[in-house]
Amino acid sequence: MSELVELSSPYLLFLGDARDDLAAKTAAGVHHWRPRQCLGQVRLPGCAADLKLTDMTPAEAARQGARTMLIGTANSGGVIADNWLPSIVEALEAGLDVASGLHERLDQIPTLMAVSARTGRRLIDVRHPKGKLKTGTGRKRSGKRLLTVGTDCSVGKMYTSLALEAALREKGCKADFRATGQTGIMIVGRGISVDAVVADFISGAAEALSPDNDADHWDVVEGQGSLHHPAFAGVSLGLLHGSQPDALVICHEPTRRHMRGLTDVPLPSLEATIEANLSAARLTNPNVRVLGFAVNTSKLEEAAARSMLDDLEKRFRMPASDPVRFSVAALAARLLAEF
Amino acid sequence: MSELVELSSPYLLFLGDARDDLAAKTAAGVHHWRPRQCLGQVRLPGCAADLKLTDMTPAEAARQGARTMLIGTANSGGVIADNWLPSIVEALEAGLDVASGLHERLDQIPTLMAVSARTGRRLIDVRHPKGKLKTGTGRKRSGKRLLTVGTDCSVGKMYTSLALEAALREKGCKADFRATGQTGIMIVGRGISVDAVVADFISGAAEALSPDNDADHWDVVEGQGSLHHPAFAGVSLGLLHGSQPDALVICHEPTRRHMRGLTDVPLPSLEATIEANLSAARLTNPNVRVLGFAVNTSKLEEAAARSMLDDLEKRFRMPASDPVRFSVAALAARLLAEF
Repeated sequence: MSELVELSSPYLLFLGDARDDLAAKTAAGVHHWRPRQCLGQVRLPGCAADLKLTDMTPAEAARQGARTMLIGTANSGGVIADNWLPSIVEALEAGLDVASGLHERLDQIPTLMAVSARTGRRLIDVRHPKGKLKTGTGRKRSGKRLLTVGTDCSVGKMYTSLALEAALREKGCKADFRATGQTGIMIVGRGISVDAVVADFISGAAEALSPDNDADHWDVVEGQGSLHHPAFAGVSLGLLHGSQPDALVICHEPTRRHMRGLTDVPLPSLEATIEANLSAARLTNPNVRVLGFAVNTSKLEEAAARSMLDDLEKRFRMPASDPVRFSVAALAARLLAEF
Repeated sequence: MSELVELSSPYLLFLGDARDDLAAKTAAGVHHWRPRQCLGQVRLPGCAADLKLTDMTPAEAARQGARTMLIGTANSGGVIADNWLPSIVEALEAGLDVASGLHERLDQIPTLMAVSARTGRRLIDVRHPKGKLKTGTGRKRSGKRLLTVGTDCSVGKMYTSLALEAALREKGCKADFRATGQTGIMIVGRGISVDAVVADFISGAAEALSPDNDADHWDVVEGQGSLHHPAFAGVSLGLLHGSQPDALVICHEPTRRHMRGLTDVPLPSLEATIEANLSAARLTNPNVRVLGFAVNTSKLEEAAARSMLDDLEKRFRMPASDPVRFSVAALAARLLAEF
């Protein structure tokens, strides 16, 4: 059994009764980054989200070749709603696996367990690693690795990583996004939710996630948390050590005044973020360098955003961009030229 | 339900068929640090270990007031041997809980599960946390905390912490050892195996382990791993952040040439160990300081050991001792005088 969660594609996206587009953001992310993997959508009565995919039943999707129905919506409790169960049962009976990134586990709901056992189709809870992990070794692996790190949680590491994968592939470079959280796993169909592994195995999970590869291949590893977040720094450090990155991208949200969820803890400076990450990363890769900055400027006017990014480029002499508002082209170009 | 594992004392120590004293080192540790909690020992035919406690059956121990039988022996696989089961069943039926720090879980062995359910006695796998943990907050707690950290794993953090607890108590200071690994939990009867919690909860577990306390109370928190160990640094960092220590003791084994289990990874210098730990610890306690060194000199002649400790004291201007060979008196004295 692989250490990694692996999903079969193509997908049917279950939007359920999402009350708005934001509630279906997992499905939207999968559709945005992997449109050709998405055959259709399932919307229940009252659903206010719409990805403009063909509405279809699980049976229709199966006939068109779908392999997995992704639960692409969320509610505040992270639970599997009772009115979703008929669709999930129908998907299993139509021959699809069903995957979810929610907190409540599909594979602990008796009705679903029974149908899964009868049909042989899988219930995949991507947030809950199942494979047998090993502890980390720090052994140098072949191939190259980039890790997105951040001043805080939720500052755009996943988006930046996916954008870099796309930009590198567009330039003909071998590159793979390596997912470390549930949404990323749903998008690319494989990965490990590193914050959900047993603590002893954080760096071992990161090692399993980006194995030996071609010398000119880049793994773009999705970062998690922040070395300066009092709740999650352990995960960030294990991921940093296990990823043994050659290149770091520093992700940041410049208007944030305190660490996510902790009003008493100020954000670290960019200098402190760079120093802490480089210093720790050198344990498993002495040649690690910072590639540049990915800044979420969505709360700034465009002129202010451009000015801020220019200042960063001058101050640190490396590329700085907003991957959503502008692009990661300068980061990708520098990576290929100098790393 | 508490986040912590909690054992009821006094104890009956199960030595099983330990092939030598080393195989019964968990029982020996409990007996060394908590002799008055140990009512007797159980030795099976062929047992080569002997703690010089009264040999007794679980029923006899129960009559004398024992509350828990501790599995105090280990074998190479970390499994519950079949020939131990009759004693464990007998203990449950005599009214004792049974606790184990082994890898294989008592509470997943059908025979034992059935007897536990019937008798209402607990099967406690101290390596496997069961309580509901929260993520860390970094909030400053009342009371004072010391954390033992190290250049590597297995350099004496548990022993040093227990010795400091004893030395502080002897001086009339309120102090509690806080166990973070299975042996420590068996010794003091409560704690959390922090390397076994889900990664998101490492610092939260450390926070739960040393809650608010009297202003003059010291928690002496058992460290784990090393910030410089590629496999376990994530655990060490989460524990450091969650413990928010006022004082650090640097534990070290001076003859070790590489990190435990990883022949390619050299040991960090003491300076690098201090810098990495202080720098990271300041996130949750800006006033953190290093108290001194606890050095395992067992592989040095006594004169060489004394000379090495003297050199350390001069170089760093703080106490350095071997807690086993000499004592932790100088560390405890400085803690009370200057922290």
